Amino acid sequence: MQNFNFCSPTYFEFGKNTENKAAELVKKFKGSKILLHYGTASIKKSGLYDRVISSLKSGGIDFVELGGVQANPIDTLVYEGIELCRKENVDFILAVGGGSVIDSSKAIAAGTMYNGDFWDFYSGKYIETALPVGTILTIAAAGSEGSCNSVITKVDGKLKRGATGEVIRPVFSILNPELTQTLPPYHTAAGATDIIVHILERYFTNTQEVEVTDRICEGLLKTMFNQTPRVIENPNDYEARANIMWAGMVAHNNICGVGREQDWASHGMEHELSAFYGAIHGAGLAVINPAWMKFVSRKNPDKFKQFAKWVWGVTDIKEAIENYTAFLKRIGMPSSIKEFGAKEEDIPLLAKHIGLTEEHTFGSYVKLNIHDVEEIYRLAL
Amino acid sequence: MQNFNFCSPTYFEFGKNTENKAAELVKKFKGSKILLHYGTASIKKSGLYDRVISSLKSGGIDFVELGGVQANPIDTLVYEGIELCRKENVDFILAVGGGSVIDSSKAIAAGTMYNGDFWDFYSGKYIETALPVGTILTIAAAGSEGSCNSVITKVDGKLKRGATGEVIRPVFSILNPELTQTLPPYHTAAGATDIIVHILERYFTNTQEVEVTDRICEGLLKTMFNQTPRVIENPNDYEARANIMWAGMVAHNNICGVGREQDWASHGMEHELSAFYGAIHGAGLAVINPAWMKFVSRKNPDKFKQFAKWVWGVTDIKEAIENYTAFLKRIGMPSSIKEFGAKEEDIPLLAKHIGLTEEHTFGSYVKLNIHDVEEIYRLAL
Repeated sequence: MQNFNFCSPTYFEFGKNTENKAAELVKKFKGSKILLHYGTASIKKSGLYDRVISSLKSGGIDFVELGGVQANPIDTLVYEGIELCRKENVDFILAVGGGSVIDSSKAIAAGTMYNGDFWDFYSGKYIETALPVGTILTIAAAGSEGSCNSVITKVDGKLKRGATGEVIRPVFSILNPELTQTLPPYHTAAGATDIIVHILERYFTNTQEVEVTDRICEGLLKTMFNQTPRVIENPNDYEARANIMWAGMVAHNNICGVGREQDWASHGMEHELSAFYGAIHGAGLAVINPAWMKFVSRKNPDKFKQFAKWVWGVTDIKEAIENYTAFLKRIGMPSSIKEFGAKEEDIPLLAKHIGLTEEHTFGSYVKLNIHDVEEIYRLAL
Repeated sequence: MQNFNFCSPTYFEFGKNTENKAAELVKKFKGSKILLHYGTASIKKSGLYDRVISSLKSGGIDFVELGGVQANPIDTLVYEGIELCRKENVDFILAVGGGSVIDSSKAIAAGTMYNGDFWDFYSGKYIETALPVGTILTIAAAGSEGSCNSVITKVDGKLKRGATGEVIRPVFSILNPELTQTLPPYHTAAGATDIIVHILERYFTNTQEVEVTDRICEGLLKTMFNQTPRVIENPNDYEARANIMWAGMVAHNNICGVGREQDWASHGMEHELSAFYGAIHGAGLAVINPAWMKFVSRKNPDKFKQFAKWVWGVTDIKEAIENYTAFLKRIGMPSSIKEFGAKEEDIPLLAKHIGLTEEHTFGSYVKLNIHDVEEIYRLAL
């Protein structure tokens, strides 16, 4: 096991009706003038918007609003949010939505406190200061509700990039599984896939002697493989939604990733599918991650033997990957990048756009150069 | 799953040589005048004491000392610590030791800020304010390094009681597995047993539909059953020590206990063995917990079926409990309360001392009255 540090201070309020505590929690974390940041019409349609507004008003909390966050949130709205926060002297951001809304909120929170261009943080600069962010989560997926990360897409150049900083971890997150019951099955399944791949990006490692985190990963994977089909069959299954929602947080606050090298090549390859074709992140991962497995398991089978045995109860690596692929198909995920509109001739451009060369690689379980990545995209056709 | 809230803000610094960061972390968490609280001669013998003093001195941190904490820490030393902290205007407590030292530090931290008798907190009053506590952990066992609990024994009356408060969660904990390599095998095994029972107290629940936390519990249990024999055979096995040390924190910061009813009857029964016979807590649990299992599995077999299947890979509950008992024997734990000096005729007094009657029960997986508890003690003879 490697040396590490870990700190996950977010306060989680989990369960039915917990969105009614929004005002109370904003006050607890010293918010007085807040930006209410959200996405499209869905929170208005579901009534969540009205309940949150009502909670804020009855709590006497002053707020301004910025809606319009889309899946794969974009830099232009972040700039708008930063300007609004500065103009209105906002001291707290309340994100009501999924990972996209939370990531957009984190970017605004960091950008408001920064003199330069917020995109610096998405070009490698560590975030040192930010406004506090609270969340009301509406989809179990990104794990952004408990993480110190944010992913934003720069419209100009189709760059989908991540930023990191302990200060952008939400100070509180309200997790009510009921709020996820109105999601379309495709989005539910894509969210579940994102959770699963967050675990797998940590699970596949060359670091030896990490049984404690291995076992947590395997437990979370089994939970996801058992519970996800339940919510696809019955979207109102509260208990399955609850198990998935908590798994989504645990999958990405890094409790299952400490002390070990992590991979993240699948995320890197997927980001290009979102940037070029607007693929829903989890759906992109559902295609890329099994293709990655097929490729890297031939080069480095070690951890795949354990994956086969402890997650799927089989001895054959190929069978384990097939089980995983069948699971993804069963929950309605795509199996080819063609379904997003990608063509074989796009592949060199996709691989090049990541920024890899023959020498410059990414991933760590198996280091991938530009040719490896092209082959993985081809396996995903 | 039940509604819950969860917040575990402790900063963990994990790995080799991390105790050298003591001064840096004390400063980060605003300590200027600290109480260095520790146990007996072992940290002086191992050289840890000198390294910590050196770190504090080179960091320019002013400190006073209070040693002498014993296993099952006592109220009289807590009173002494409170007086010292007040006299010396201490603003931070650094606990160097195991759960006993940390629990004693938490009691002093709460008592210093309280106008009444600190024992009020161990009689049911919730702790609202306390000095910040940091820890350098020397045994993987109690999980106090990441928990909001403390257990103290009142010498007068042999009362071993717990207190709770979010404010007594350590602000930082330094976890260096090397520091646990000098522990005698009996203490190592008792610590491992404590960790295992922390998981089991949460695992055995009547709350349905909690797969995510079940699986985390099962993963941690398997880790403990695999790794503990390694350190009994080779005390210098760093990797096994590291896995156990992190499992010990995860087992008790409640990440595996959220959203579910928990039991804690085994801990309640063990506390009497510590109070009356000075049993090492984990060793007491090694006797009581299997006896509890034998008794309650007859009355409520449901979760035991899952325990048998998912933890031990067997279908027979009796076989699973026998496997568990054999594991405890293999790591050198006692199997009868007689080994602590208890006699059959003591049993009514032990049961009565818990404060139970025919109507007043404790535990939740199976509610136990005074007669049930007597029978469990007899099963533990």
